[in-house]
Amino acid sequence: MLDTTLMNHFLELDEKNLTLTLEPGVLLMEISAYVEERGFFYPPDPGEKSATIGGNVSTNAGGMRAVKYGVTRDYVRGLELVLADGTILEVGGKVVKNSSGYDLKDMVIGSEGTLAVVTKITLKLLPLPQKNVSLLVPFPTLAQAIGTVPLIVKSKAIPTAIEFMEREVIMDAEEYLGRKFPDNQADAYLLLKFDGNTMEEIASYYDGVAQICLDQGAVDLLIADTDERSDSIWKARSAFLEAIKSSTSAMDEVDVVVPRSHVNEFVEYIHGLQHELGLRIKCFGHAGDGNLHVYLLKDNLSDDDWHRVLETGMEKMYARAKTMDGQVSGEHGIGLAKRPYLKESLDAPTIRLMQHIKDAFDPNHILNPHKVCFE
Amino acid sequence: MLDTTLMNHFLELDEKNLTLTLEPGVLLMEISAYVEERGFFYPPDPGEKSATIGGNVSTNAGGMRAVKYGVTRDYVRGLELVLADGTILEVGGKVVKNSSGYDLKDMVIGSEGTLAVVTKITLKLLPLPQKNVSLLVPFPTLAQAIGTVPLIVKSKAIPTAIEFMEREVIMDAEEYLGRKFPDNQADAYLLLKFDGNTMEEIASYYDGVAQICLDQGAVDLLIADTDERSDSIWKARSAFLEAIKSSTSAMDEVDVVVPRSHVNEFVEYIHGLQHELGLRIKCFGHAGDGNLHVYLLKDNLSDDDWHRVLETGMEKMYARAKTMDGQVSGEHGIGLAKRPYLKESLDAPTIRLMQHIKDAFDPNHILNPHKVCFE
Repeated sequence: MLDTTLMNHFLELDEKNLTLTLEPGVLLMEISAYVEERGFFYPPDPGEKSATIGGNVSTNAGGMRAVKYGVTRDYVRGLELVLADGTILEVGGKVVKNSSGYDLKDMVIGSEGTLAVVTKITLKLLPLPQKNVSLLVPFPTLAQAIGTVPLIVKSKAIPTAIEFMEREVIMDAEEYLGRKFPDNQADAYLLLKFDGNTMEEIASYYDGVAQICLDQGAVDLLIADTDERSDSIWKARSAFLEAIKSSTSAMDEVDVVVPRSHVNEFVEYIHGLQHELGLRIKCFGHAGDGNLHVYLLKDNLSDDDWHRVLETGMEKMYARAKTMDGQVSGEHGIGLAKRPYLKESLDAPTIRLMQHIKDAFDPNHILNPHKVCFE
Repeated sequence: MLDTTLMNHFLELDEKNLTLTLEPGVLLMEISAYVEERGFFYPPDPGEKSATIGGNVSTNAGGMRAVKYGVTRDYVRGLELVLADGTILEVGGKVVKNSSGYDLKDMVIGSEGTLAVVTKITLKLLPLPQKNVSLLVPFPTLAQAIGTVPLIVKSKAIPTAIEFMEREVIMDAEEYLGRKFPDNQADAYLLLKFDGNTMEEIASYYDGVAQICLDQGAVDLLIADTDERSDSIWKARSAFLEAIKSSTSAMDEVDVVVPRSHVNEFVEYIHGLQHELGLRIKCFGHAGDGNLHVYLLKDNLSDDDWHRVLETGMEKMYARAKTMDGQVSGEHGIGLAKRPYLKESLDAPTIRLMQHIKDAFDPNHILNPHKVCFE
């Protein structure tokens, strides 16, 4: 089936194989509009909806629904590539299983344009879940909020998303958006989402989760089971980054990922670092999958002080993540800026092997040079 | 948590991160017993339950639940590897998201021991679904049975498994097992499984699917909602391979995968080939994911005739699969025997790139030499 009005971008929706083939320039917001209107679902859901699917493939973007649904890699069935020597290659395809030689597709996903140019993408779709419910849970302290997450996971409920947030960030978002969040009395919040095809199915998950939250000291439970209530919460969540940006003169960010059970320890470390370094650090993120977005704010620091403090702060955070078997980037990728930290974080044989793979794909290093771990 | 009685194999069950770390020698049947007893679920489900998890990782094994749950690759979070030069490397880990450099883990999965030796595996687990229902659906013809599958997929139901089978194979299984299958009157059957946490949730899927089957000419619907009924069907399904083997003097097999919408065309082609080549071909498989297991039977053919006919048959089948954008192997891998067909199936630049990757990992070709696409 071909939608001719969109044929520059969307190439084929194959309902019998549940695949969507498109060009890399299509935006995430265009994909969700296109597939959801037709009863399908593309689960990866990064905050930046104006990102292209090509960019998402290049960084293996994750987003908020990764707790239940996984990341971009899990939804890429096939790619058309142009190699450094101009060869056009198809890797993967519409087949569901494949054990026919090396997995070139997954090597290219997340390689940030350093191995090949992606010119066409075949995505796997799911049927669109019919219902969803969000749960906003205020806690007296952030430690209690985050400490509840591994217990939710252990309880065998499967939320679509589990986000954590602090009051400060919510107040920034209220000011930025010019409207009130449903609650801003508590120091910390968990925001959970559940989806499914019937409200009974969803209730079978969230009833147990609500009880766990109360047992861990939650002061209230706000259930958003209408689109309007739910939108007002998730819109605020989506505005966090812009709200933080607008509250300071300059900022830099860290996208670390640690095992779910170490999130609290990492956040406590950041709080301490704030005082140690003498700058504001704000943080929110995907508590359900251990992926934290941490923002260091320049505020009134001089340029010299800022760069000095920033470097120390980054080094310390990545070093701390490494002790927890964490990784430098959960979903943003490495690019140029995080290159030194990747080299610190991975051991020498791993870096060497990645460099050999780069040589195997692109012997003259002409594709997106100097990125990831290449001089 | 460490189970000391099993500590030679199972290394850690981490309930907060939903991961199981183990040695590659653990058998699939040991994994399912261990995790299901504790309320967890490892979804990949190949027919051969005495296979090791290391072997499953090496071939990226799939199995019957791939329709809903995906394949081995989707459940490997981390690997400990020994490289050709003796270096020990950890790739991936317990983190849920990762965009930190190239995806070495997925390159090794499915590489059949040619890139590294896997010495430790960290698997992702899911909560065990509480309920399941199987549906056995007799059809007048195999074409009707298989033709129904894309309609089921398109209807946005998500069965756990969709298998197809012919009466002949069922009768072989009855003889082999010495007991009756619940029905053997029809020429062809679809066998579907649904799982979930409540019977209401499952019913919301299978009611629609049952109607689609009847609309497509199904002559009956046998619902197996007790463990006993369900076991008798799935045990027969698991015995197909051994039953076919015991019905002939020698056999060889093909593990092609084609897009779901092309299964019927491929099966029709095989039926024709049977007459053209003058040998019996039996086939069953994973209609839901396009992965077919096709068996060519020697019966009374002389050795010379057998090898001649076998070669022609294989070449024709792989060539036909290629015209449908299929692949040589869905889950068994390439090894030695399928090497010439992989070379036929993939284009020269793809093979060359795979060879460069082999060189990057194992410059002296000492790891499982000559396998996959290497002389």
